[in-house]
Amino acid sequence: MIIIFEKNAKQNDIQKVEKYLTENKFGLNRSQGKDHFVLGVIGDVSTINTDILKEFSGVENAIRVSESYKRCSRTFKPTDTIVKAGNVPIGGKDIVIIAGPCSVENEKMVHSIATKVTKKGATIIRGGAYKPRSSPYSFQGLGEEGLKYLKEAALENNVPCVSELMSADKLELFEKYVDIIQIGARNMQNFTLLKELSNTKKPIMLKRGISATVEEWLNSAEYIVSGGNPNVILCERGIRTFENSTRFTLDLSSVPVIKKLSHLPIIVDPSHAMGNRKLVLPMARAAIAVGADGIMVEVHENPDKALSDGPQSLLPYQFETLMKNFKIIANAIGRKIYELD
Amino acid sequence: MIIIFEKNAKQNDIQKVEKYLTENKFGLNRSQGKDHFVLGVIGDVSTINTDILKEFSGVENAIRVSESYKRCSRTFKPTDTIVKAGNVPIGGKDIVIIAGPCSVENEKMVHSIATKVTKKGATIIRGGAYKPRSSPYSFQGLGEEGLKYLKEAALENNVPCVSELMSADKLELFEKYVDIIQIGARNMQNFTLLKELSNTKKPIMLKRGISATVEEWLNSAEYIVSGGNPNVILCERGIRTFENSTRFTLDLSSVPVIKKLSHLPIIVDPSHAMGNRKLVLPMARAAIAVGADGIMVEVHENPDKALSDGPQSLLPYQFETLMKNFKIIANAIGRKIYELD
Amino acid sequence: MIIIFEKNAKQNDIQKVEKYLTENKFGLNRSQGKDHFVLGVIGDVSTINTDILKEFSGVENAIRVSESYKRCSRTFKPTDTIVKAGNVPIGGKDIVIIAGPCSVENEKMVHSIATKVTKKGATIIRGGAYKPRSSPYSFQGLGEEGLKYLKEAALENNVPCVSELMSADKLELFEKYVDIIQIGARNMQNFTLLKELSNTKKPIMLKRGISATVEEWLNSAEYIVSGGNPNVILCERGIRTFENSTRFTLDLSSVPVIKKLSHLPIIVDPSHAMGNRKLVLPMARAAIAVGADGIMVEVHENPDKALSDGPQSLLPYQFETLMKNFKIIANAIGRKIYELD
Amino acid sequence: MIIIFEKNAKQNDIQKVEKYLTENKFGLNRSQGKDHFVLGVIGDVSTINTDILKEFSGVENAIRVSESYKRCSRTFKPTDTIVKAGNVPIGGKDIVIIAGPCSVENEKMVHSIATKVTKKGATIIRGGAYKPRSSPYSFQGLGEEGLKYLKEAALENNVPCVSELMSADKLELFEKYVDIIQIGARNMQNFTLLKELSNTKKPIMLKRGISATVEEWLNSAEYIVSGGNPNVILCERGIRTFENSTRFTLDLSSVPVIKKLSHLPIIVDPSHAMGNRKLVLPMARAAIAVGADGIMVEVHENPDKALSDGPQSLLPYQFETLMKNFKIIANAIGRKIYELD
Repeated sequence: MIIIFEKNAKQNDIQKVEKYLTENKFGLNRSQGKDHFVLGVIGDVSTINTDILKEFSGVENAIRVSESYKRCSRTFKPTDTIVKAGNVPIGGKDIVIIAGPCSVENEKMVHSIATKVTKKGATIIRGGAYKPRSSPYSFQGLGEEGLKYLKEAALENNVPCVSELMSADKLELFEKYVDIIQIGARNMQNFTLLKELSNTKKPIMLKRGISATVEEWLNSAEYIVSGGNPNVILCERGIRTFENSTRFTLDLSSVPVIKKLSHLPIIVDPSHAMGNRKLVLPMARAAIAVGADGIMVEVHENPDKALSDGPQSLLPYQFETLMKNFKIIANAIGRKIYELD
Repeated sequence: MIIIFEKNAKQNDIQKVEKYLTENKFGLNRSQGKDHFVLGVIGDVSTINTDILKEFSGVENAIRVSESYKRCSRTFKPTDTIVKAGNVPIGGKDIVIIAGPCSVENEKMVHSIATKVTKKGATIIRGGAYKPRSSPYSFQGLGEEGLKYLKEAALENNVPCVSELMSADKLELFEKYVDIIQIGARNMQNFTLLKELSNTKKPIMLKRGISATVEEWLNSAEYIVSGGNPNVILCERGIRTFENSTRFTLDLSSVPVIKKLSHLPIIVDPSHAMGNRKLVLPMARAAIAVGADGIMVEVHENPDKALSDGPQSLLPYQFETLMKNFKIIANAIGRKIYELD
Repeated sequence: MIIIFEKNAKQNDIQKVEKYLTENKFGLNRSQGKDHFVLGVIGDVSTINTDILKEFSGVENAIRVSESYKRCSRTFKPTDTIVKAGNVPIGGKDIVIIAGPCSVENEKMVHSIATKVTKKGATIIRGGAYKPRSSPYSFQGLGEEGLKYLKEAALENNVPCVSELMSADKLELFEKYVDIIQIGARNMQNFTLLKELSNTKKPIMLKRGISATVEEWLNSAEYIVSGGNPNVILCERGIRTFENSTRFTLDLSSVPVIKKLSHLPIIVDPSHAMGNRKLVLPMARAAIAVGADGIMVEVHENPDKALSDGPQSLLPYQFETLMKNFKIIANAIGRKIYELD
Repeated sequence: MIIIFEKNAKQNDIQKVEKYLTENKFGLNRSQGKDHFVLGVIGDVSTINTDILKEFSGVENAIRVSESYKRCSRTFKPTDTIVKAGNVPIGGKDIVIIAGPCSVENEKMVHSIATKVTKKGATIIRGGAYKPRSSPYSFQGLGEEGLKYLKEAALENNVPCVSELMSADKLELFEKYVDIIQIGARNMQNFTLLKELSNTKKPIMLKRGISATVEEWLNSAEYIVSGGNPNVILCERGIRTFENSTRFTLDLSSVPVIKKLSHLPIIVDPSHAMGNRKLVLPMARAAIAVGADGIMVEVHENPDKALSDGPQSLLPYQFETLMKNFKIIANAIGRKIYELD
């Protein structure tokens, strides 16, 4: 950590900071520049908040040289983490395809879609049972009944399933029914919930908050990992910008950025950000090319009748074409699409 | 609601949409433009999600003409809502000043600051007991003990108090200790929590999410109000932009925008967004001038030793000067600072 | 165009708007909703500014149903435009690769790099002679000398070249030396310059402004096309967001969005947005997969010694690998990389 | 400047950087942290581009401790700069009010408005003659004729005037007619134009780019000041964010931020950002309270008939009320509104 003092900072103020740091067993390196006095702090600074240091009189800025997260950083663990969802490995050489409806609407529809997408090559199925809706007047999901239908459809097709958890009081239910617990963008900084998730061993798919920096996202993952659950999968789903021709701006560069900073697997969900299936198709292909460890897409047999997010759902025949594209693109970058034995 | 069809939309597709709407008892107005067919939907559309309509084949866009929130809108209730926190009215002609430390650090400090700020004119005190921290390694607050100290300091000075609630399981505790329950920016779209808040009668101070639009913010308030708790106070605290000379960009224009769209009171918290007390002072003055119903600022006697967010806390003498400025500016716009009898 | 009136708008105000529109020969469609009166405007509304209509008393909003740009829209011209730079077609089935140094630093370096990249498959070369630098103390480019070296290197390798023009007074010079005139992000709304560009027949590569919406970008293209120069190539180069792990957020979704709205070709420049060659590689591959008509990348033999933007320049061997990836990915989506005969 | 090396950077790479710096006469301070080697660079670093240093192998980051702009910084000149427009001082204790129509529409209207606003206390008049319009189909201004009418109206009322210059070829014309040359947001990084502006002595009002950081804005001012024209007035006019209830988000915190970093005067233009006169009024009051050296607002006698930007223009009676508010608020912060003798 580097502490930059204000021009003409008082000696007395500098000494107070030095005293604080030496009392906390940090080493110091002093450097007087043309205008600013600069202090280098030596030791394990992951436990200091830079804000604490910016508080001291005379301090202009405190800049972290190492990351604020630790267990999630590639420095801490240089090799890629592979998270197992049932028997499906996420984060290795193979790319995993997750597909299914936005919401579980009824028993029949989830079975039908699950069968179609797994036949075409999806190896994990998805479906929402508790829906985070910005308006209280929108469809809120089937609840436990939805989870049950999803699980049955997964078992029938011999694949794991993923669904979104919205609050800690339903954690036990999710441990019973799902193989990956999804945490939505709006809960990425629900720290109370994150702490609870460190007490399960179930894989957690942590979506990026709609205006979260990559650093904040990794700090949220750190809550789960440092608390005892190393099975975290990151999921890029778009950030909020001024552009309004798409719902969110899918930040595909976060994939190589995460690969550089962290050992955790990262997948991409292009459906919600695009909000339109014609845009989902090319962005899904691009997500494979950029190096994602998996793709999650919404598929619906009759999107015009969907109870939520219909226009972004792919039709089964589009999903089939996409899978063919995926195989060639994965090959171009030396990877392959994961297949069940 | 207006539904715009794609150029050359099929008659069959248009008829499907018309059928759906008439079955749901809406009136229709048909209009054929040069390029696009447009359908006006007549009736109470607050219960339809525009997304449902965008799903239909041939639909290019569906635009809401009325608001998606209802009970929070000024159309529904044209007169200003006044929320009472203890005996203190928020949202009337008088402007309320809320002050106190960022975190309750110990019994003595909260009493000392509470006494100082109420003597200078604050009529509500604040203090965090549960802290939402982006890193798991930062100070997380004193918990119930902190709430207890805050309440005692409030009683001693005969004012109400406010503190942040992070999860529904602590709601009972907060009902016991605090007069206003603050919901932080990171939980603005924690819909499970919002639903629980509709079951209490305690005033809720709902902070704007760091990348929430004004419309989403009002939709979150709608969760609480439509569920049965009309006592919502909105709090602008800054949004995330590309500018990095301040932590967040305080969007003061949200104050007159909210006044136009809604009857709910709105206060401004300049401390977190600015991150530096030299910037907090002018922005607090501007917040009075722009028409806020209240201001919430952090005050600390020894900010260099604060356990959280020291650099943005005002010193007691700065708070005193600010109160004098507030009185004159309030007068300039025909309002006054609320005072205890 | 649709005009939404305020709740309880006065009849007199509505009549003024209707009069204005009928005087201007537009047809009208009247619709009284539950709360709002809505007016549909029928005719060629591309000549009306919505702001003019929002000005009228009683008008709450005016929403354009058709695009504000006309000649650049796919409605106006449904088939893809192919722009020819020398003999190289941009915008057809084949994908064009543009490569070269960020700045032309001297005669020898631009010849050497041009030879290397064209041997590996680039069919257009790039190089800056006039550099837009945010600080007046940074290297500003070699000027005309740089253009001359670039042109010679292009001729030697029998390919066209592209360079950035910063002001209209240098237009004649650029017409002499370059085959594509690049307009940088900072000049995307330099309307005086755009108007001048409509007087040349040279292809214009119009970069997206750093906070331009897709609609504004197409409106800027409209300045050039409506003025008489149909040869516009759009170039996505990243937008400004809160994320700071990359310089800009490359918005790859703008590619399919532009393809839907416009007939103009669109290429992607991942170098400046990423600012780091490790990130440029995967984003370039993703840009092919998403459907771009071309890619422009910076290549340098000794990036550590570059006078501008070294860290984002690819090394020649990296460019070679990339070309191999490009061929496979292009094939996966039914396209191919353009090659000289 | 501080250079942070990658973990495990090679000695050889570190030495290359050290050699480059010592050859360029900079002093060095070496510091080995737990993970990273850090180099402090001592000397006048305003001439080095940090990008040059980030290019070297092994360098992770290069962070500027002093500002990249020099002559505009408060370090270089600690006292406030006062720019004189005619006899009117901008940047001193007094706050200057600039008012007038968005566009000069005809001779009579500009005379009439100029007379009204100067009678109520405006001491500079404004009016656009060349309009930057995002669509080529919108009204583009009266050109030289407009400048002439504006100047006559200014002379008649014995005040200076300001208008927007869009390209260098009109500079001579502006020197003849206007007292302050306004550079619009879209040209803030038109570096060719900025260089030309350093050759005049006329005051330049430099608007902030719609997505410019404060640092970039000051760097653009540096182009003008370092080239020889010290008379720069900054103008905050709103930045682009995701919020769409206003056209732009007026960043009032830039006022105290600029006051801290620079000695240049700063004024606020709330009209364009708000796009609605009901929002302009409170934001103008807030701009006085936050410490702006001036306010620029649009006033129109018949906004419903305005040729551009009518809905944001104040009516003369609203301007009169605003002036009264301004006086009281200015007094509250120890300043006053500038008046002609």
